[in-house]
Amino acid sequence: MSDASTFVLDPRLEGDSFPVLDLTLATVRLMDDARFPWAILVPRRPGLAELIDLDAEARATLWSEIDAVSRALKALTACDKLNVAALGNMVRQLHIHVIARFERDAAWPGAVWGAGGERQSYGAPQAMRLVGQLREALAA
Amino acid sequence: MSDASTFVLDPRLEGDSFPVLDLTLATVRLMDDARFPWAILVPRRPGLAELIDLDAEARATLWSEIDAVSRALKALTACDKLNVAALGNMVRQLHIHVIARFERDAAWPGAVWGAGGERQSYGAPQAMRLVGQLREALAA
Repeated sequence: MSDASTFVLDPRLEGDSFPVLDLTLATVRLMDDARFPWAILVPRRPGLAELIDLDAEARATLWSEIDAVSRALKALTACDKLNVAALGNMVRQLHIHVIARFERDAAWPGAVWGAGGERQSYGAPQAMRLVGQLREALAA
Repeated sequence: MSDASTFVLDPRLEGDSFPVLDLTLATVRLMDDARFPWAILVPRRPGLAELIDLDAEARATLWSEIDAVSRALKALTACDKLNVAALGNMVRQLHIHVIARFERDAAWPGAVWGAGGERQSYGAPQAMRLVGQLREALAA
């Protein structure tokens, strides 16, 4: 169902995140921002910018995958709230944010974009541990 | 399929927006903010806070409804980008934002939450016109 042969991940998304794993439609990545446990899903099809660019089958698949990532993040972090968003004002390639929010986090209760100060990169051990935990939860 | 009998719209959502119409699952409202053409969808079921609280059938229905609202807003406004988000950090009742964004709007290219200055209420004629246009597009 996917025309993955010509899909190329946007270099800005690639540079800001670590690979977690590929689901049926989307590749899942962990944003390199230690302030917020923050995954993105990028459907591996070329030319997508909006959710309404997806056909019904792909939409259903993506929504199952968003659910799976949401449940995994919630289980791993015991967060207070999930934030799910498709914005794409800066990077046009369709990508969906799934962010675990806490009532004590840097941007609470605001949205994370443009708030909460500067991005804080993970240390390598911390990033590897969270990527591993997410991969394990999503592969189950 | 919906247990609408005990659903009560959160008063903050109600106060910030105008009613447009009820779809099968969600009630659609127009945010009273003239800076951005901005709809919200609120599933008419009590006790929902997260997208993962929806069962598979409701999720599919909601996603069709988000698609319909997105297409209607895009057709009405010829916007440059759609922003779709479920945040709920401030108002916990599940609601999905669908916002028509323009490369010249008050918050571009940032997200709209907490950006772009103060909310600007519509004048009544402008609000009534946009509500009417949305209602017509969604009832088609």
